[in-house]
Amino acid sequence: MTREDFASTHRLRVRWAEVDMQGIVFNGHYLTYFDIAVTEYWRQIGLPYPQATAETGGELYTVKSVVDYASPARYDDEIDLYIRCKRIGRSSLTFALEIWRCGDALVTGELVYVHADPNTRKSAPLPPGLIAAIERFERVAPARN
Amino acid sequence: MTREDFASTHRLRVRWAEVDMQGIVFNGHYLTYFDIAVTEYWRQIGLPYPQATAETGGELYTVKSVVDYASPARYDDEIDLYIRCKRIGRSSLTFALEIWRCGDALVTGELVYVHADPNTRKSAPLPPGLIAAIERFERVAPARN
Amino acid sequence: MTREDFASTHRLRVRWAEVDMQGIVFNGHYLTYFDIAVTEYWRQIGLPYPQATAETGGELYTVKSVVDYASPARYDDEIDLYIRCKRIGRSSLTFALEIWRCGDALVTGELVYVHADPNTRKSAPLPPGLIAAIERFERVAPARN
Amino acid sequence: MTREDFASTHRLRVRWAEVDMQGIVFNGHYLTYFDIAVTEYWRQIGLPYPQATAETGGELYTVKSVVDYASPARYDDEIDLYIRCKRIGRSSLTFALEIWRCGDALVTGELVYVHADPNTRKSAPLPPGLIAAIERFERVAPARN
Repeated sequence: MTREDFASTHRLRVRWAEVDMQGIVFNGHYLTYFDIAVTEYWRQIGLPYPQATAETGGELYTVKSVVDYASPARYDDEIDLYIRCKRIGRSSLTFALEIWRCGDALVTGELVYVHADPNTRKSAPLPPGLIAAIERFERVAPARN
Repeated sequence: MTREDFASTHRLRVRWAEVDMQGIVFNGHYLTYFDIAVTEYWRQIGLPYPQATAETGGELYTVKSVVDYASPARYDDEIDLYIRCKRIGRSSLTFALEIWRCGDALVTGELVYVHADPNTRKSAPLPPGLIAAIERFERVAPARN
Repeated sequence: MTREDFASTHRLRVRWAEVDMQGIVFNGHYLTYFDIAVTEYWRQIGLPYPQATAETGGELYTVKSVVDYASPARYDDEIDLYIRCKRIGRSSLTFALEIWRCGDALVTGELVYVHADPNTRKSAPLPPGLIAAIERFERVAPARN
Repeated sequence: MTREDFASTHRLRVRWAEVDMQGIVFNGHYLTYFDIAVTEYWRQIGLPYPQATAETGGELYTVKSVVDYASPARYDDEIDLYIRCKRIGRSSLTFALEIWRCGDALVTGELVYVHADPNTRKSAPLPPGLIAAIERFERVAPARN
């Protein structure tokens, strides 16, 4: 995969409060950046949260996150968030994420969400409208299984 | 592995500001909890940061984090952080982490650190004193490779 | 007022992620500490949130915060949060807060809350049970007006 | 003062992780927004941090913050940060800040910084180049005293 395979990008600037005594972004804040990428992803596919799951009344819950830190972001850096849906399951969605600063890949990772009933917390099939919107939007077809 | 295999534990209470609109701790904040577990780990082995790497003048940088979210923590929950060193490499350390609330495992995960020179950011052999302190402390011997 | 006038205290430890490139706690995080002090205050007066306002079904909203920064807290410092209710109005509560490290006052400040209906956001008289619990708890009687 | 008196503005979007169980931005995060406004202010006057104080080798430390919360920001809101320097002292700077969402003033406040030597933490006269840049930039002349 290359950056061109990511249909969704979003730029942000590293905040002072996100940088630690080592002069680099604290490792946990990259999950905040990933979350911003997801927010913008919903907007870009035309279903800004909470419309993404309005069809079913369900919610999306994070069930796994992976972050590989190659090189640190620093104060005031402009960084680009890349996100694409790589797998659509029955009730789960897997996203690949990358954070770049100019030509450097700083961080790569993955987020897995499960669609569930907010009351019972039982997983439930993804809303068909959400699947359709993702498939229309992506450049590389997500795996289906 | 069971909880008894973890020599290091630390209790904390979930803060209001860590809970989101779904009424659960935001996924990124678990990495802050993991980081607190690491801070307490250094203290418990007798080398509170920055003593852990004072021997070499190096720094420890996060190179990978994995979080599996099984069940959410909520506002004002008292949760227990479990951490143990599962692998000691030439320049890297791998920690296993678990977060429990009473008898429920909420979150499990992993953190990998690399010991590097803060100026060149090149990896460097772990301080022998740090390795010795970890091996004295752990109940289950970390893998070596 | 002296520290002995504060009936409520709570100790916490500064986290790595709360410290910035200047090596001191980022100014905004003191409001998180203040918020923790408030959480513990409700618990100590016997009405842990959300019991504090369960009587009326209202919510407490922050309407003002003031922080005076005298001296910085640093990584791994153990700091003590002092909080007392200094004024009880018709629908508002004013708290004085101080943060100490051993014998040093690091930060002082104030928080003002208003009790309001969560739907209309109109202010409403404080729950009488909450007022009574505060007055029983405090060493120095809060002003009433 | 009206919004037109503020030479510096910056727009941002409220993040998911900044919103609490009441469905509104946690009160402490407005100080993060204020800090972003200050970062952009330095950039807009032509002295992005750390250039602002490079002339003297000093640092700027927050000594006071005041926040008045009129109306809450919510998830995904686009909000506008307004900041202007209202007073230039010998070693201190006072900023007025306002946060608006369309035609609504959500939050107003103040930040006071002191310029000090990072080693001794003693206050020191503001860099003349910084004062000159602020005075060139502001629409309403800051008070001097």
